[in-house]
Amino acid sequence: MSDLKIYLAAQRQKVNTALEATLVKNDKSPRIVKAMHYSLMAGGKRLRPILCLAAAEAVGGDSENAIPAACALEMLHTYSLIHDDLPAMDDDKLRRGKPTCHVAFDEATAILAGDGLLTLAFEIMAKAASNSADNVRSWLKVIQLIAAGIGYQGMIEGQMRDIASENTKLTPTELEAMHTLKTGALIEASTCAGAILGGGMSEQIEQLKIYARHIGLAFQVTDDILNVEGDPELLGKAVGTDMERHKNTYPALSGLAASKTFSHELIDKALQAIKSFSNKAEPLRAIARYIIARNR
Amino acid sequence: MSDLKIYLAAQRQKVNTALEATLVKNDKSPRIVKAMHYSLMAGGKRLRPILCLAAAEAVGGDSENAIPAACALEMLHTYSLIHDDLPAMDDDKLRRGKPTCHVAFDEATAILAGDGLLTLAFEIMAKAASNSADNVRSWLKVIQLIAAGIGYQGMIEGQMRDIASENTKLTPTELEAMHTLKTGALIEASTCAGAILGGGMSEQIEQLKIYARHIGLAFQVTDDILNVEGDPELLGKAVGTDMERHKNTYPALSGLAASKTFSHELIDKALQAIKSFSNKAEPLRAIARYIIARNR
Repeated sequence: MSDLKIYLAAQRQKVNTALEATLVKNDKSPRIVKAMHYSLMAGGKRLRPILCLAAAEAVGGDSENAIPAACALEMLHTYSLIHDDLPAMDDDKLRRGKPTCHVAFDEATAILAGDGLLTLAFEIMAKAASNSADNVRSWLKVIQLIAAGIGYQGMIEGQMRDIASENTKLTPTELEAMHTLKTGALIEASTCAGAILGGGMSEQIEQLKIYARHIGLAFQVTDDILNVEGDPELLGKAVGTDMERHKNTYPALSGLAASKTFSHELIDKALQAIKSFSNKAEPLRAIARYIIARNR
Repeated sequence: MSDLKIYLAAQRQKVNTALEATLVKNDKSPRIVKAMHYSLMAGGKRLRPILCLAAAEAVGGDSENAIPAACALEMLHTYSLIHDDLPAMDDDKLRRGKPTCHVAFDEATAILAGDGLLTLAFEIMAKAASNSADNVRSWLKVIQLIAAGIGYQGMIEGQMRDIASENTKLTPTELEAMHTLKTGALIEASTCAGAILGGGMSEQIEQLKIYARHIGLAFQVTDDILNVEGDPELLGKAVGTDMERHKNTYPALSGLAASKTFSHELIDKALQAIKSFSNKAEPLRAIARYIIARNR
């Protein structure tokens, strides 16, 4: 576990340095830059970019080539959080232990900051593709893959279903489908993007896709569990809110114990999918275990 | 003028057909698709995609190659309108003669429909780049150009300034800078994208950039004028609203007559910039004249 902590801290540092270089902010920056920077640098786990870099390494590639994708993925994740937190959506006041973007700035600025990060993500990927000597085709695949993952047939549809389901009881199948879209699609895209940019074979990419699908769902189940029994201090956000809002969660659907068993089964399947990978996939394995063991 | 009307109708038809094929909607479509489709197909002028196609032709290229960019540009324009119309921004109820997206659907859906169109625009451009045999580099240039034009240093910054200026009096320089960002950047990107995909020389692209900058500003000045003396029936939206909101407009700053003179000067400069172009640039010339002559 300690090795993983060192690895995650190093990767997080790498991502944060690249993000700071991409979205330069100082005291004189326009308000939009300050808002984008505020949410982007609010101290997330950087799970998606780290998965992207780790997947590039797992297939034997150089993760340096995947840095622009890693940055783009974190921007896309942040954009989705900013918009999800808006009063018209989940109306959340706290995120990563800090006031949400529309609270710290204002609603209009938050909408535009989300738009700005979404747009910037594609700009830096297109730039990386342009600068790439022999990897252009891989980059184009990655841009399409990510766009499809976060688009109206992916993450956005997941958020639509989440909102629509607020006063309806979902079946386990519907709940899983919603999470696969809302959180799973971007986690899957993050992992596959890294694998493609790392030069992975199509079979490896397929296996990593299965890995990602399972850890993505396990991540969501754990989020639901933490909303029941987590520590708000560690989480940086309120707990018990899902129950108050009658949200469809795994604990609500099948109880805490069954949810924990389910999350462990998912991680077992994720590990099984990358069993044939070399020890270069060790970080991916450690991340999978961490996803259900985390307390924040 | 009649020739132009036929040309515009034909190009509009081409764009609409391509848009319908890209975002397929039927009775069973998810709500997000219906919302995206509603705003996208609400009957706009299609100025940006038509400029893109016309610019491709003006440099001697085949406009067919630019169709995906044309579609993407209209999606981006529509996304910006949906978000600008939101209660937290301009709070507009009517657009193109129909209820705005958040009125016809709801606020959360409108935010996500905008996000969906923004994402889809990049997806189809990346796909076009992938499918392109020998035009990949041009496509990557176009994606970057468009992303920069609509991003936090372009259109989004323009919208930020527009909101910030609501209770402040801008100088003519500040007003021009705001419009250059808010409307000009996308019109410029549309024209340049077409020129690049049409295989234009860098000098031609530069000239078209000047053309676009001037018609973009003339378009905005005319919009301001129409908000004073236009016909709400023809415009499909209310008039007199800028004055009510004490908005910074050209007529408010320098009067109606001076605004009209200014718009004519801008069009003269736009025409001057493409003087050396062949008769293949005739549509661009006609569009420039139409921009200030229009009544809707």
